[in-house]
Amino acid sequence: MAESNQNSGERTQQQQPAAGGGRRTFQAPTGTRDFYPAELNRLRYIQKAWRETSIRHGFEEIDGPTFEHLELYTVKSGEGIVSELFSFERFGGEKTYALRPEFTPTLARMYAARANALPKPTKWFWMQNCFRAERPQRGRLREFYQWNVDLIGDDSVEADAEVIACCIGALECLGLSPNDVTVHISDRTLVSALLTECGVHGDQTSALMLLDRRAKLPAEEVSRQAAAMRFDIARFDERMRLVMSAAGESKVGVLRSIRNEDGSPIFDGSRLRPLGEELHRMGLADWCRFDLSIVRGLAYYTGVVFEVLASGERAVAGGGRYDGLIQLFGGPPTPAVGFGMGDVVLSLVLQDKRLMPSDEEIADRLGLRPDVFVIGRGSEAADAAVAPLVARLRREGLHARRSYKATKNVGKLLKEAAACGARVVAFVEADGMSVTLERLEDGAKQSVAGLEGVAGAVRGLIAEA
Amino acid sequence: MAESNQNSGERTQQQQPAAGGGRRTFQAPTGTRDFYPAELNRLRYIQKAWRETSIRHGFEEIDGPTFEHLELYTVKSGEGIVSELFSFERFGGEKTYALRPEFTPTLARMYAARANALPKPTKWFWMQNCFRAERPQRGRLREFYQWNVDLIGDDSVEADAEVIACCIGALECLGLSPNDVTVHISDRTLVSALLTECGVHGDQTSALMLLDRRAKLPAEEVSRQAAAMRFDIARFDERMRLVMSAAGESKVGVLRSIRNEDGSPIFDGSRLRPLGEELHRMGLADWCRFDLSIVRGLAYYTGVVFEVLASGERAVAGGGRYDGLIQLFGGPPTPAVGFGMGDVVLSLVLQDKRLMPSDEEIADRLGLRPDVFVIGRGSEAADAAVAPLVARLRREGLHARRSYKATKNVGKLLKEAAACGARVVAFVEADGMSVTLERLEDGAKQSVAGLEGVAGAVRGLIAEA
Repeated sequence: MAESNQNSGERTQQQQPAAGGGRRTFQAPTGTRDFYPAELNRLRYIQKAWRETSIRHGFEEIDGPTFEHLELYTVKSGEGIVSELFSFERFGGEKTYALRPEFTPTLARMYAARANALPKPTKWFWMQNCFRAERPQRGRLREFYQWNVDLIGDDSVEADAEVIACCIGALECLGLSPNDVTVHISDRTLVSALLTECGVHGDQTSALMLLDRRAKLPAEEVSRQAAAMRFDIARFDERMRLVMSAAGESKVGVLRSIRNEDGSPIFDGSRLRPLGEELHRMGLADWCRFDLSIVRGLAYYTGVVFEVLASGERAVAGGGRYDGLIQLFGGPPTPAVGFGMGDVVLSLVLQDKRLMPSDEEIADRLGLRPDVFVIGRGSEAADAAVAPLVARLRREGLHARRSYKATKNVGKLLKEAAACGARVVAFVEADGMSVTLERLEDGAKQSVAGLEGVAGAVRGLIAEA
Repeated sequence: MAESNQNSGERTQQQQPAAGGGRRTFQAPTGTRDFYPAELNRLRYIQKAWRETSIRHGFEEIDGPTFEHLELYTVKSGEGIVSELFSFERFGGEKTYALRPEFTPTLARMYAARANALPKPTKWFWMQNCFRAERPQRGRLREFYQWNVDLIGDDSVEADAEVIACCIGALECLGLSPNDVTVHISDRTLVSALLTECGVHGDQTSALMLLDRRAKLPAEEVSRQAAAMRFDIARFDERMRLVMSAAGESKVGVLRSIRNEDGSPIFDGSRLRPLGEELHRMGLADWCRFDLSIVRGLAYYTGVVFEVLASGERAVAGGGRYDGLIQLFGGPPTPAVGFGMGDVVLSLVLQDKRLMPSDEEIADRLGLRPDVFVIGRGSEAADAAVAPLVARLRREGLHARRSYKATKNVGKLLKEAAACGARVVAFVEADGMSVTLERLEDGAKQSVAGLEGVAGAVRGLIAEA
């Protein structure tokens, strides 16, 4: 799904001749997707896992506008976002808007607007589309779907763990295991202490952003930027190596035993140790690793940060604690923790791991299989009864279909019924009044006199299967 | 939902003082909505009816980009749309895009791109958001949700009827009856014949748009514009009155008997008569009326057009046949019929008719009620077991909750469980190992030794209820 239906119209426009007769053809914008039914069902399959996991964990769904005033994004989201915005003005220039590159600023605005009336904690989830104007590449599109989960108004380690558990819940629901993906957990307060130790005093945002972008930059450029902010990055790396060699690649349950060379606990002042214990109690230690190289590219994180990683791909999900953000958007001081997971990288991982079910399996799981396919036995009365019977069955709540083909060949019609996955075939007999039902799975049959009883009999046959 | 959470930030910005301490507050764009959980659930309730009705009628869901190249809309959608677009450029001005004001151009583009590979007919539905930059007013917002249903590649009257039946199916599913809303059906070929008779030859688009906008314009302006196009609007009105007095306000079943004064059938050459017969056979005659005053504001309709009307409101839905559109977007000549229904007017009508269920009822119908609420009996061991048990139950597929409050008062915790609609309460006993379940509906109790069996026992208690 992620790539197969990806539009690259602007790049291929000149290669495609117009359809016959010199007709004008139209291309979709680069980096967006056309979702035909099979592709959309794969997205819906993922979204169903997201939604059901959110609900099971006690989160409630919210949504906001697709575009916001530009300033909502330019004020506080960090430079990583601002250069990628799709912004626009209404004619007359009344206001400048931007398509949302992420949902968190809207969430913070909405929480701030009703902070006093909302429960503590407030548990919200959101799953809609975001827009980034960057150059499309593997795992990155200009329009993509994202799932956000946020627990607001609770600064406990249990809240961090609950949010991480929800994230893992969806991965597990989609068939992924700790062999496929792992949650890499860090703590910005710990990284921040290391940064201070290495010369970065005051606002550390630039240093954090440098660490986050590091893998994408030439080594000399990293050194140059570090030197410019008096950041002793060599020493930082040495300290990191020390910590990581002891704990970094460990499973979370092991963390308790790690100490500095002088015997002091290495994670003092950090939440990583109690968080590891809580994740262990929840049975999630296998999914989690501490990894202090995780920084996250957004400026607003203040504590625990984490990324879900699969080998060879961008992060499947990322999140953390952002205790200052809601106040920055006009609300009271409010602790909060959350994460976002996009559909694009997740789809690539599911495909790589051969965990994306077949189209038929997905249709079944989404409840898209027809209950009944109606076929006339060939008489004029029978054929005339097909469409009204289909209409009646639909009004009675069944997913009913018929053929639109001219053929009266019952064998061909039966094939069409089977091809669309119908559970039961209803044959309208020659009198146009009586109906014979056949369950396709096992050939079980039932006769119904009169059209009124058909819906009930179909339901009975399906329930018995 | 439609109005209660509507943002009007730009108008009220100056009236609202910043929150305490001179903090900056951010407003949402005018004409958009913030959906907090209760409001979003009301939208989801409507969308569930749309989705289930679509699936029951054999339509498959598709989606396309939220924004398209501007030219997709400027080329063929008619002037009614173009002035209301939100358009924008990427910096550098690489291309001009616009937020979709409707989905039909995208649908036509997508169908044209794969016309040869798609089944005949192709039955698609779509339900996402659209954007119009007009001034927000009752029933009109700048971002709104729409449901589209389209049957492509079939030019039969049965196809028209099937699409209208699907439209009615959703209205019925939401509790509406023919006393609340009616489908007003017309045929542009018939109106077109009347226009020709009244002097409008060649391209009749301007005359049709004039008729569609008529109620919003001063009478002199209508006369002036009609005269400019040599449209004898007085004669048109007279002919209309004749037809309407005989048929216009009639239910569709009555149509067969209507004739001109010279004895010729008044609807010769139109599909209204066979369409009326088909709708009658489907049991839908009570929902439908012929109403030749229905024109629809989009230029691309070619045959039957219809609107769902409720007293005192804008149209709840509108659609019709657009046999030329797919060819205009680069595809082969392809007949098509479809409609769109927005959430805003529909919500107003459901509220007016007191058909919007309570928040609790909606939560129940959307499957949002917790299965189980876990309470510790007060010992340290019991309290420590609560969060891990909740985590375990969630991993086992149950919607499990607990209190985040500091209180250990079991009466207060029971109240919290009941307030969130939980079906079962699980009391962790003082030993932290055994659990007593209580079904809140009737007080039925069950003991479970050990935490492993709790999920199964909860499922059993819920199934027995």
